[in-house]
Amino acid sequence: MMTILLHLNHSKPLYRQIADAIQKQISDGELKPNEKLPSRRALASHLQVGISTVQTAYEQLIAEGYLYTRSRSGFFVDPDAYMFSIQMKNCNPCPTEKIEATSSDKQIIFSTRGVDLTQFPFSTWAKLSRQVLSSKREALLQSIPSMGLSALQEAIASHLCAFRGIQVSPAQILVGAGTEYLLGILVQLLGASKRFGVEEPGYPKGKQVLRSNGTSVIGIPMDTDGIQIDELEKNGISVALITPSHQFPTGKVMPIRRRVALLQWASEQSGRYLIEDDFDSELRFHGKPLPSIYSMDVNAHTIYMNTFARTLAPSLRIGYLVLPKQLMEKYQNSLSFYSSTVPSFEQYTLVQFLNEGHLEHHLNRIKKRYQQRQILLKTILKSHKLSPFVQIYGDSAGLHMLLEIHLQCKEQELLDAAKQEQIIVSGLSSYYDNLSTANALPYPCVVLGYASLSLEQITKGFKRLLDAWIKFLP
Amino acid sequence: MMTILLHLNHSKPLYRQIADAIQKQISDGELKPNEKLPSRRALASHLQVGISTVQTAYEQLIAEGYLYTRSRSGFFVDPDAYMFSIQMKNCNPCPTEKIEATSSDKQIIFSTRGVDLTQFPFSTWAKLSRQVLSSKREALLQSIPSMGLSALQEAIASHLCAFRGIQVSPAQILVGAGTEYLLGILVQLLGASKRFGVEEPGYPKGKQVLRSNGTSVIGIPMDTDGIQIDELEKNGISVALITPSHQFPTGKVMPIRRRVALLQWASEQSGRYLIEDDFDSELRFHGKPLPSIYSMDVNAHTIYMNTFARTLAPSLRIGYLVLPKQLMEKYQNSLSFYSSTVPSFEQYTLVQFLNEGHLEHHLNRIKKRYQQRQILLKTILKSHKLSPFVQIYGDSAGLHMLLEIHLQCKEQELLDAAKQEQIIVSGLSSYYDNLSTANALPYPCVVLGYASLSLEQITKGFKRLLDAWIKFLP
Repeated sequence: MMTILLHLNHSKPLYRQIADAIQKQISDGELKPNEKLPSRRALASHLQVGISTVQTAYEQLIAEGYLYTRSRSGFFVDPDAYMFSIQMKNCNPCPTEKIEATSSDKQIIFSTRGVDLTQFPFSTWAKLSRQVLSSKREALLQSIPSMGLSALQEAIASHLCAFRGIQVSPAQILVGAGTEYLLGILVQLLGASKRFGVEEPGYPKGKQVLRSNGTSVIGIPMDTDGIQIDELEKNGISVALITPSHQFPTGKVMPIRRRVALLQWASEQSGRYLIEDDFDSELRFHGKPLPSIYSMDVNAHTIYMNTFARTLAPSLRIGYLVLPKQLMEKYQNSLSFYSSTVPSFEQYTLVQFLNEGHLEHHLNRIKKRYQQRQILLKTILKSHKLSPFVQIYGDSAGLHMLLEIHLQCKEQELLDAAKQEQIIVSGLSSYYDNLSTANALPYPCVVLGYASLSLEQITKGFKRLLDAWIKFLP
Repeated sequence: MMTILLHLNHSKPLYRQIADAIQKQISDGELKPNEKLPSRRALASHLQVGISTVQTAYEQLIAEGYLYTRSRSGFFVDPDAYMFSIQMKNCNPCPTEKIEATSSDKQIIFSTRGVDLTQFPFSTWAKLSRQVLSSKREALLQSIPSMGLSALQEAIASHLCAFRGIQVSPAQILVGAGTEYLLGILVQLLGASKRFGVEEPGYPKGKQVLRSNGTSVIGIPMDTDGIQIDELEKNGISVALITPSHQFPTGKVMPIRRRVALLQWASEQSGRYLIEDDFDSELRFHGKPLPSIYSMDVNAHTIYMNTFARTLAPSLRIGYLVLPKQLMEKYQNSLSFYSSTVPSFEQYTLVQFLNEGHLEHHLNRIKKRYQQRQILLKTILKSHKLSPFVQIYGDSAGLHMLLEIHLQCKEQELLDAAKQEQIIVSGLSSYYDNLSTANALPYPCVVLGYASLSLEQITKGFKRLLDAWIKFLP
């Protein structure tokens, strides 16, 4: 008869103590495969516990695969149970690898990512968050429609109407955890077998997301107006991902004639689509932005895409699509099994934020801030001896601009010289898929993001950058 | 000379009024393609405004594609500008379609989706949310590492260790906006060309997500132990998605021998993987759950998947994967361009919730609640004359169980009879891909979810359900 030490005051229930002890004897090889265990009655009497306690222990061990039972003949050790010796170890606290920050204080990164977080209306957002927490309660826990909370769809539709003159039915708006997620959904909606055309140079993440979702992605060269339509044709493109309001990274605004021509291209074949990434359109410094391609499209071949990551904060993870009606229906039929990827809490808070007009205020405030940075950069350039050799492009909107450097040097030399002075900028060629196209550029170009830098950092950093390039003067 | 009515007290700036007026004249056809505009000086003097105001208006119109300029010869109407007559209409409030709730009060849905939201520790969550809002501030706005906040990775690793005896490095944990999103990421990580095997019957959403991501998905029949390994072989499966803790929807627990055999199968070829969906493992009613397959796997062929949607609330949208080390590295190399899909706010709040032990308390509380519902269901069944004809399966854990109905009728007849009494249940066959396999079941089965129903609804609803089936008695 097996011996089991029972602790009656132990926090572990008796049946579990019995089960654990049997388990240990199996693991240790004391109980052999197919060996018969004592009957419930016998073990109960031996251990001086109730039969039902032993019964529970045996049932538990059967469920766990340690024992099996043959009706009327008792309980036996499962022949596979020895495999449990591949067992979990005791849990020690796992070592956590910490990455040390390596960037020194001196280093200044003119990154195109990031926004000026000091401007985020945190107290407003926090106030609204608290209101949502106390007023919504149960509603916060309900599952959300696949395309997003209808109140948020309505608030975004009103925002689009007021800010971009785009008139849509709220039901066409698909809210998701950022434009990267939404691009993946678009691949599923349009079909991964389609050929996607992206601007060359263009937004690297867009290409990565599309490729990672299994599509074939072709970089399409641009002329002065934007992506070239004959190249779309030549490459058999069905879906073109474009940034007409403020091309990334050149900052160009696509003129009306190319917009119309793209719509014409899209309407020529069914299944052709434009994905209009309208990021930065709300951050235009002068005048009104051009009407969106979406709002010019009478044939429903344009998908509009935008995000609150650049106007509010990247960590919020809320982007949205406006789907043409037939795609909205296709989504409802084939993809609405997906749960909404944005927590209801953020959705409700954003509804309040939009409906109370805070985004409008916020946009006005940050536009001023970003423009101030641009003016500072231009002022610094003007008084610098490199001024005649540097041409600025793409400064009508957004969080970055392009410097075309009219000096006898290569892009890499410019980046290296900057890096020696601890200034990190990116070269235009890194936004190209096809390096030979990039190498054919008449002048080297540098992409300058300034959104997340302070005025002081910009002053110091840009001077240091220009000084670093003096050595290339003729 | 064109006539433009200027409102000097208007809120619109002068240059914009000039630009708008010119734009209107172009749209109305008063200014023709390639027609020359008055010089800046002439128009300024005519309108009695500064030259720079006209200059700004002209520049804006060039940016917008209405005008073009030839150096030294002036400003002209862009020949494409007429296309702007495809213009945005004035924004009227868009009609919002509201869907009327159609379900009457009498209808009771025994859904497998949904959880008991009345048990959500709302005040704790709200308290922690408020703390996070006031203590984290700037940190909330920073972008989050692609795999998730490291504090959350650590908290989940500790939770896995304490609750499931799974020892992982926090760096292996990938946090994402729900398991649906994470399955999509897994397709990208493992390759869409792989053949995925799913349990037959199985979780419909899992199949939908995998198929929608372009993989070929095969329903693999199960025997009493679970998914059949010879069928995995026969169908050339590389990746098997399984629910060993509490098979969905049959509720079976996979015994140790099948777990070991699956690990053996996975280790036989490189590129083979098990995706262990461990949902419901924390909601086991009796004893400890079986060790996870992940923790038994010495060859790193198992990906562990779980969610907080069923233990906390579906609207939180937080799931996670534990990636074996080589897949974690592959993710870092090829997919870490993705931004984290879970807002930092939810991540920080969940960190606090886990670290302060609230999940543990919550799990204990809801387990009692769900078990109470099970006991109620069993008690009702016991005293009902259908009792000898109804066999319950899958009641060891989770939020649903299976009723096998030993009556001379078809599944559809059971569902129809229930529906006539306004009781909605789902048939087991709806979880099958291959209906002929479903039709070969010896008895019709009904899947009974009870998590989101009150005790009163269960009492009423289950009696009505059983009564509806009395007519099938022999």
